[in-house]
Amino acid sequence: MRTAIIRKEHFNAAHRLHNSNWSEAKNKEVFGKCNNPNFHGHNYQLEVKVIGDVDPETGYVMDVKVLKSIIRKNVLERYDHKNLNLDVSDFKNLNPTVENIAQVVYTNILKDLPEGLELKIRLYETERNIAEYPA
Amino acid sequence: MRTAIIRKEHFNAAHRLHNSNWSEAKNKEVFGKCNNPNFHGHNYQLEVKVIGDVDPETGYVMDVKVLKSIIRKNVLERYDHKNLNLDVSDFKNLNPTVENIAQVVYTNILKDLPEGLELKIRLYETERNIAEYPA
Amino acid sequence: MRTAIIRKEHFNAAHRLHNSNWSEAKNKEVFGKCNNPNFHGHNYQLEVKVIGDVDPETGYVMDVKVLKSIIRKNVLERYDHKNLNLDVSDFKNLNPTVENIAQVVYTNILKDLPEGLELKIRLYETERNIAEYPA
Amino acid sequence: MRTAIIRKEHFNAAHRLHNSNWSEAKNKEVFGKCNNPNFHGHNYQLEVKVIGDVDPETGYVMDVKVLKSIIRKNVLERYDHKNLNLDVSDFKNLNPTVENIAQVVYTNILKDLPEGLELKIRLYETERNIAEYPA
Amino acid sequence: MRTAIIRKEHFNAAHRLHNSNWSEAKNKEVFGKCNNPNFHGHNYQLEVKVIGDVDPETGYVMDVKVLKSIIRKNVLERYDHKNLNLDVSDFKNLNPTVENIAQVVYTNILKDLPEGLELKIRLYETERNIAEYPA
Amino acid sequence: MRTAIIRKEHFNAAHRLHNSNWSEAKNKEVFGKCNNPNFHGHNYQLEVKVIGDVDPETGYVMDVKVLKSIIRKNVLERYDHKNLNLDVSDFKNLNPTVENIAQVVYTNILKDLPEGLELKIRLYETERNIAEYPA
Repeated sequence: MRTAIIRKEHFNAAHRLHNSNWSEAKNKEVFGKCNNPNFHGHNYQLEVKVIGDVDPETGYVMDVKVLKSIIRKNVLERYDHKNLNLDVSDFKNLNPTVENIAQVVYTNILKDLPEGLELKIRLYETERNIAEYPA
Repeated sequence: MRTAIIRKEHFNAAHRLHNSNWSEAKNKEVFGKCNNPNFHGHNYQLEVKVIGDVDPETGYVMDVKVLKSIIRKNVLERYDHKNLNLDVSDFKNLNPTVENIAQVVYTNILKDLPEGLELKIRLYETERNIAEYPA
Repeated sequence: MRTAIIRKEHFNAAHRLHNSNWSEAKNKEVFGKCNNPNFHGHNYQLEVKVIGDVDPETGYVMDVKVLKSIIRKNVLERYDHKNLNLDVSDFKNLNPTVENIAQVVYTNILKDLPEGLELKIRLYETERNIAEYPA
Repeated sequence: MRTAIIRKEHFNAAHRLHNSNWSEAKNKEVFGKCNNPNFHGHNYQLEVKVIGDVDPETGYVMDVKVLKSIIRKNVLERYDHKNLNLDVSDFKNLNPTVENIAQVVYTNILKDLPEGLELKIRLYETERNIAEYPA
Repeated sequence: MRTAIIRKEHFNAAHRLHNSNWSEAKNKEVFGKCNNPNFHGHNYQLEVKVIGDVDPETGYVMDVKVLKSIIRKNVLERYDHKNLNLDVSDFKNLNPTVENIAQVVYTNILKDLPEGLELKIRLYETERNIAEYPA
Repeated sequence: MRTAIIRKEHFNAAHRLHNSNWSEAKNKEVFGKCNNPNFHGHNYQLEVKVIGDVDPETGYVMDVKVLKSIIRKNVLERYDHKNLNLDVSDFKNLNPTVENIAQVVYTNILKDLPEGLELKIRLYETERNIAEYPA
């Protein structure tokens, strides 16, 4: 049986939901107030879960200090106090729904994670709207 | 790999734990203060998780506005500010433990959910007593 | 300058809002779904603040173990897993709004508090509806 | 002694901190990443406290349903899913710091509040940065 | 499909991270401020999840009162207000990382759990550092 | 009317309650399990409230970045991951109750605060035990 370690971090960002292949009317109909052209924003809460075996020397699945620096480099420094649509290349052609952000965060963090570890992302857009990837 | 979206809602209800096939003494012994004949109550916190694929057009597993209206119709309008034992047909013959409520909420929501989506329920009776279905 | 100590406790109770001097129609109009005749319920969160001077021998404004036992005797044992309207004498002739419950809790606890200490009550009916007495 | 009722609401908005009388360099120096030209955003949590006497007929300081509709009209409908700098006239010439937003919310709500009630605002920009007005 | 019941408890303990096979320099390098020789401490939040079938007589996966007494005997009475390194035999030869504590709690509780039930532990060392076993 | 800004921070520390002028028996009787000779510990949550006028140039009562650095220097760097009784000079001759820690934090922060600002401290030893100074 394996063990998981979870680290919580957060970032504050502006975004809007928008599909550039659609008319303004369709965007408004589907995304409602989340489509506001001047953006709105959220305090995103991020939970990064890493699953693996506990190293008997350290008692760690993974050093949380290392995990924090991977999250900082790949997510916080790139998303915090930014406009996801305008400032972040990941969402140049991708609608920044909470589901899509969770998938992108997964891909970004995974590439810097030591081999043999499993990764899961939980992202809170608000206290009441949350995505998980992989489910 | 699939993605999940989670929506949190809440309702405030009265209930008591009681098995009508048992004597008053046995009910008191098994359910303790939860068996109080005049009821007590809780602020139930409900987490509804829907698992599926992200639609590339919308970036959604499912439109949360639709999910909210399914939860409202099937749970909130029927349970909120009600007495679960006396006012809600679901518990006419079913003891409203947190486990049983979670199972009934699952069945009620599932029938209105689009096909191909997986459903999981997490229900908080208090901050410290929680049920999940399916586990 | 004085120092405060705050102790949080909770109780789960059923209640309904009702003024027996009014018609059913007026009760329904004023109290809405909170007037449901079969009751509903809440997880009440209670914060008891005691203000005084720090005893240089103990470093305490008041021993929290003593404060807990005063809260238990005067509030928890009398309200927890009860129907406030039917089971608790304090609300025989008093509508159990969150404001009125806060005032009654204040009076009940104050009479057992050592002299010279100031008391304030904060009561959460839900996470979003709260009363304070005295304000 | 008076009693208080507190109602919590929330809104999600984009903003940036900026003083248009200052150079870009000074804005960047004083406001740091909060000055990002494309905005960032927050889930603002709002606590509206109303202090008064309890009406013996209702047991209310004020009907929370009425308070909610005052908050909705004056704050939520105007700020939620908006860009405070671009979409909200209140901040046309006012820097939307958490302190200034709290003061403006106070003024907006006060004018619709019944006479004789005292008002206090607590506004969370994040879980860790909070303003109160009046203090 | 099975159902889960989760019970949350907490304990407050001192600990330090240390591997007695390593030099002081290596301990300091790997564990940083968590290696402070005079210890530091945490409010540990513990979630114990038990998975099984719902008994049709009681509506329970397991009586939470019984689960609470198993947690109290095996964890709270042994860890609460203790120094994990010095006062608790479980960590005589085991580094009390959050991962190792979660595994030990799992083993301690499992031996008193009725047969046929599955067990999962979630342990919060802080709000931001969490372990799960099994993952 | 003045405005307040509140900053939340936290630190994790070990401590024990003990009065060196008392016998072991009296210490045990008064402080109970908090007197455990090998210490226990807490995740302390600290709220620092600063009350003043809003600067019309910045919209700030005080720059939160400056407040954070004052808290870091005077509290976090000296208390975090430390044993309050053994490692921190402030408690060489002072029992580290939550009341006493709040008073000492007040004095430490006040001396670095710009003139004309009022200071209030709220300190959570656990989610349920809190001190405020001044009250």
